[in-house]
Amino acid sequence: MMKLHCFGESGNAYKAALTLTLADAAWEPVFVDFFQGATRTPEFRALNVMGEVPVLEDGDLVLSQSAVIQDYVSSKTGKLGGKSAAERRDVLRWMFFDNHKLSGVAGPLRFNMNFLPEDKRNADVNNFMAMRLASALKVMETQLSETQWLAADDITIADIACAGYLFYTEDFTFDRADYPNINRWLTAIADQPGWKHPYDLMPRALG
Amino acid sequence: MMKLHCFGESGNAYKAALTLTLADAAWEPVFVDFFQGATRTPEFRALNVMGEVPVLEDGDLVLSQSAVIQDYVSSKTGKLGGKSAAERRDVLRWMFFDNHKLSGVAGPLRFNMNFLPEDKRNADVNNFMAMRLASALKVMETQLSETQWLAADDITIADIACAGYLFYTEDFTFDRADYPNINRWLTAIADQPGWKHPYDLMPRALG
Repeated sequence: MMKLHCFGESGNAYKAALTLTLADAAWEPVFVDFFQGATRTPEFRALNVMGEVPVLEDGDLVLSQSAVIQDYVSSKTGKLGGKSAAERRDVLRWMFFDNHKLSGVAGPLRFNMNFLPEDKRNADVNNFMAMRLASALKVMETQLSETQWLAADDITIADIACAGYLFYTEDFTFDRADYPNINRWLTAIADQPGWKHPYDLMPRALG
Repeated sequence: MMKLHCFGESGNAYKAALTLTLADAAWEPVFVDFFQGATRTPEFRALNVMGEVPVLEDGDLVLSQSAVIQDYVSSKTGKLGGKSAAERRDVLRWMFFDNHKLSGVAGPLRFNMNFLPEDKRNADVNNFMAMRLASALKVMETQLSETQWLAADDITIADIACAGYLFYTEDFTFDRADYPNINRWLTAIADQPGWKHPYDLMPRALG
């Protein structure tokens, strides 16, 4: 039974949890009380110097970075990866795009707009990130106007990575109605057997 | 002869260019006039829907995302990758960390502080990114206080990725003197045979 250190509010943890779930892997969540500083403890830093969830434990193997966990689970189960070298490169390409341009912005923007105390929220900072997020979403909308999935003929871990933050309903300036192809694609992901919303797949830290 | 679409000011392009160089691959740069909008043209978007450099052409194969290009060059040449499955996972882990937390912040911060017109620079936005950059650098400093290289016993594409922005001398709040282990590691990278500064490896768009 693999253990995933996670909490429901983390879109990066969700990418790993949803990959484990859709790949039918045996796993259980280990709750990390992020908002109480659990990722800043020496114990957690010993597990992951990067001080982040998700962390996957599979026996003695400890993995961090959501994309590395996704890649490991896909390789181990033979599911949700590409079917050729070309598809696998495209899977990796969209996962890096996600980390660099999409989740790397959506994550902090959603945090700042919802989880920071109101007196610490900064409109200029959030507007800057909202502009960058819209640019990344526009790239995905263009791709999804031409193909059903991002990187292959079927759903892959690249789709799960790029969708990681997009099922959350807290306001972070993303509205599915503005992106008809992203909207169609998110519905197709949610239609996968076993799909669950992040708050139904992992223990929540808040609420 | 592989062709790398790039320009000197792009740290992401530099990661690909330095990987090609240190792996002794045959390549030539194709200059992209970024500041004149060259990545926003329909022709460039047809090459890369993401509208970004670098793009690598190897015969009919077209690759984008610096990390995917680095991974391809490493696989093709058998150099600069990890020596075991565990090392390769750690290489990938630091490359995702770089994209998500390091270059994903250093890139826009350096752009905003140096290449934006002065009246468009925003101190709150830049301070926010400087804080995030310092957090990422602190993680690397911790790792490099324990190991000589980030992901393996020798230099890998993970080191090249994480160093991508750190050789530039324009001010983006990074000072090597603040991070003795990062400083030692950057010197070790620059000591590799064939190493060149980004402005000596790729055509510059400015200056």
